[in-house]
Amino acid sequence: MTPTQKRADEGVRSLKLKEIADLVGGEIVGQADVPITGVAGIKEAKKGDISFVSNAKYLPFLLETQASAVITAPDVTSDRTPLLRTANPSQAFTKVISFFKPGGAYQTEGVHPTAVLGKGVTLGRGVAVGPHAVIGDRTVIGDRTVIEANTFVGPSCRIGSDSRVYPNVTIREETVLGDRVIVHSGTVIGSDGFGYDTVAGVHVKIPQTGSVFIEDDVEIGANVCIDRGRFQRTWIKKGAKIDNLVQIAHNVVIGENALLVSQSGISGSTELGKNVVLAGQAGLVGHITLGDNVIVCAGAGVTKSVPADTIVLGQPAKPIGEQKRLFALIARLPDLFRDFADLKKKLEK
Amino acid sequence: MTPTQKRADEGVRSLKLKEIADLVGGEIVGQADVPITGVAGIKEAKKGDISFVSNAKYLPFLLETQASAVITAPDVTSDRTPLLRTANPSQAFTKVISFFKPGGAYQTEGVHPTAVLGKGVTLGRGVAVGPHAVIGDRTVIGDRTVIEANTFVGPSCRIGSDSRVYPNVTIREETVLGDRVIVHSGTVIGSDGFGYDTVAGVHVKIPQTGSVFIEDDVEIGANVCIDRGRFQRTWIKKGAKIDNLVQIAHNVVIGENALLVSQSGISGSTELGKNVVLAGQAGLVGHITLGDNVIVCAGAGVTKSVPADTIVLGQPAKPIGEQKRLFALIARLPDLFRDFADLKKKLEK
Amino acid sequence: MTPTQKRADEGVRSLKLKEIADLVGGEIVGQADVPITGVAGIKEAKKGDISFVSNAKYLPFLLETQASAVITAPDVTSDRTPLLRTANPSQAFTKVISFFKPGGAYQTEGVHPTAVLGKGVTLGRGVAVGPHAVIGDRTVIGDRTVIEANTFVGPSCRIGSDSRVYPNVTIREETVLGDRVIVHSGTVIGSDGFGYDTVAGVHVKIPQTGSVFIEDDVEIGANVCIDRGRFQRTWIKKGAKIDNLVQIAHNVVIGENALLVSQSGISGSTELGKNVVLAGQAGLVGHITLGDNVIVCAGAGVTKSVPADTIVLGQPAKPIGEQKRLFALIARLPDLFRDFADLKKKLEK
Repeated sequence: MTPTQKRADEGVRSLKLKEIADLVGGEIVGQADVPITGVAGIKEAKKGDISFVSNAKYLPFLLETQASAVITAPDVTSDRTPLLRTANPSQAFTKVISFFKPGGAYQTEGVHPTAVLGKGVTLGRGVAVGPHAVIGDRTVIGDRTVIEANTFVGPSCRIGSDSRVYPNVTIREETVLGDRVIVHSGTVIGSDGFGYDTVAGVHVKIPQTGSVFIEDDVEIGANVCIDRGRFQRTWIKKGAKIDNLVQIAHNVVIGENALLVSQSGISGSTELGKNVVLAGQAGLVGHITLGDNVIVCAGAGVTKSVPADTIVLGQPAKPIGEQKRLFALIARLPDLFRDFADLKKKLEK
Repeated sequence: MTPTQKRADEGVRSLKLKEIADLVGGEIVGQADVPITGVAGIKEAKKGDISFVSNAKYLPFLLETQASAVITAPDVTSDRTPLLRTANPSQAFTKVISFFKPGGAYQTEGVHPTAVLGKGVTLGRGVAVGPHAVIGDRTVIGDRTVIEANTFVGPSCRIGSDSRVYPNVTIREETVLGDRVIVHSGTVIGSDGFGYDTVAGVHVKIPQTGSVFIEDDVEIGANVCIDRGRFQRTWIKKGAKIDNLVQIAHNVVIGENALLVSQSGISGSTELGKNVVLAGQAGLVGHITLGDNVIVCAGAGVTKSVPADTIVLGQPAKPIGEQKRLFALIARLPDLFRDFADLKKKLEK
Repeated sequence: MTPTQKRADEGVRSLKLKEIADLVGGEIVGQADVPITGVAGIKEAKKGDISFVSNAKYLPFLLETQASAVITAPDVTSDRTPLLRTANPSQAFTKVISFFKPGGAYQTEGVHPTAVLGKGVTLGRGVAVGPHAVIGDRTVIGDRTVIEANTFVGPSCRIGSDSRVYPNVTIREETVLGDRVIVHSGTVIGSDGFGYDTVAGVHVKIPQTGSVFIEDDVEIGANVCIDRGRFQRTWIKKGAKIDNLVQIAHNVVIGENALLVSQSGISGSTELGKNVVLAGQAGLVGHITLGDNVIVCAGAGVTKSVPADTIVLGQPAKPIGEQKRLFALIARLPDLFRDFADLKKKLEK
């Protein structure tokens, strides 16, 4: 292998800057027919790339960038690089990205002939179903949603519009997903919760007959697990974002706009308020409540309910001020032990 | 999306209460022809649902439930809700569940035409193999076992009877699964163990030629990893239950009826006795032994062997009494530092 | 199920010892026509197995082994077991293993008729593509690489020669893999990084348009997640080895010959030097640097950059000597509190 940064599709797509202006709006300053073949960050951009600056602190990079064009706010000027000036550079850039990076789906419209659909499946307009995807009986899929290759959607599910389910996902029966939901590869939604009655030392499975209910604008990372409720639903509210390898047990409720960072885990029936943040590898015991805006720091182990607007840290987790003070005192233990020994020696004299 | 709790299949199945009594036995008290269209917990049940009460502490909910019928013990009465009275309400309810919630398999009998079977595959009676499942040469699958969509079972495996392998599972070559084993989606059984000889700074792979041996009545959650042994087998004994995202390294032995909670991890060659419990995110180093009935608390890091009947907590893990005492003393460090400073000041006067 | 150790394929392959000598070289001492039907470790070997001893400390097992033949160094002798003596017993044994354990791929050469290949896919000589695998447009796959069943490789990827991608893997668009790379089942490479702009409390997705670049001789375990860069690439350098369930966030750089043990996690933009070891469940915050040869102990939480050649332990992680001293002092807190109380009492008299 020759380690090279060239991508296999480099140069496949090409637009002139004025064609990009037609797509996303804005005013061109400089050479309007410069050819654009890709997108990149302002620091990483090479010749042929278009980039953007939306934050004033990145403006100095405009003096050094190799980009062939840059999208900026209306008041920006440049001697060396053609600009596309627009009120919202970040939004315009996102539109340009969607042209140059169409997103890798194998099937972008229609049902691939190798997909298997059950009885009574209802597909909205513009739905794409990839190769070897399987969709169970009676499932309903909204307009323009993409179900990618090798993904399984069980019977009696409902998936909203403009959602995207990446390859090799498993969505079990009766799951409900809202609009604009994104589910990354390897994720499992609706697996059985971990529940047993232990009778004479033997663990007897408790049927898990609930479902999973995921509201609009939720994004779920790769290899995440979200168990179905025992009777009720496990519930992820609008706008929550879930990173890779997160565990969400049965009957958990995740509040609106929560952020659950990678490898965090939430035990059964625990409920999170709005805007809660779990940093990486945080763990929560079951049957507790975290109030709105709670932040759980990385690696923390939360063993009891946390009131709103609190930051907790450590194992077991405590409010951050208290915990940081304890960490500082632990670091001073060598001094304390030594000073105490000195004092005792002195007093014994 | 209109967030509604209605499931797509609601009302698909319907039975009269007396038909349910025919299925599961028991005596009806009240209206025998009330139509039943679903199952739910006593608190969550709506009109049309049947529920159950097996524990006396839930009896008060009988006064408030919206259920159309409730399965109870023989001595229970109700003015408002039809009852199905039976000696074992929980067991009867589980039977009713299996009627209303058939479990979501795409294929419930026979081999789907898109499944690919190797040479010399042996299928028992009533086996179901889902769409796009792949089964390798010489693999043997017992009666009534279900292999779901998009699952891969490698060559020379043996899977017992009445087992269920959910979609998108990978079972590598030579794995043995017992009877009534459940494997949830995304799980990988028989991946190579993590073993290298480091020669002049380069890590040279040590072939992992053992297998995985899983006994009867084991349940394995979603996105679990169980590595094959280096030469021997990795061994999960009868009745052990494994939650989502658990890591089991090569040559590990899990004792009967162990409970491994989500995101716990066990390093190579470690052995667990009977009835061991690992709580969530617990971690065990390699080459140690945990005796029967050991409990490892959530997030604990076990660095050495633990004798039977011990509960351990913390990082590094210690017996729970000792560790809780240390946690309490750490919380009192601010007092200790202050008192010590006061004492020194006093003595200096 | 009758729990038996017999594998379904036991005895399928058989060679005489002299035929093995023809395959791997070396000198036979003892019976040259003893039939060999399998491979095993020196302690586990049964009749029919060939084993090996490369380390002098295992020589005593040669007196007890049940193996039908043993591969040893040239100076070893045995009264009871036929030997195959060679300069490098470990290497010879690895060759023998590859005969008896061909590795479980469903498809060992050519493209299975159920695989789906996009436009402009380029396959090298001897490439195998398993049942229901999907390969996107323009992707290039090098000689003798094996893409197993139900795996998805997105468009515009490049995979080198002699690589192996196990079943149910997802490799997203534009990923580059080198030669001799191994990717185990359930792993996701190139998923979107976890990045949002929070505008008026709503998390707006930041497009993740970079890629993943994996150099030669990297091995990646099962159910691992490696996110694509935001603009740049996430980069795994030559010879790094990654265990199961590891999280690698966007823009991370992993140095040559790093070892990342199971369930460890690395946040965005963090960079690791050469030969870094992350033990199980270690966690690293984002935007830090670990120098060459750093070792992070199991369960440690690294919150700031670590200089080369340092071992760190604990949450928050500290150099191991300092942290072990603190752990020892924490264990002595009961003594300190008691001694201090005694001293105060004494002084008050």
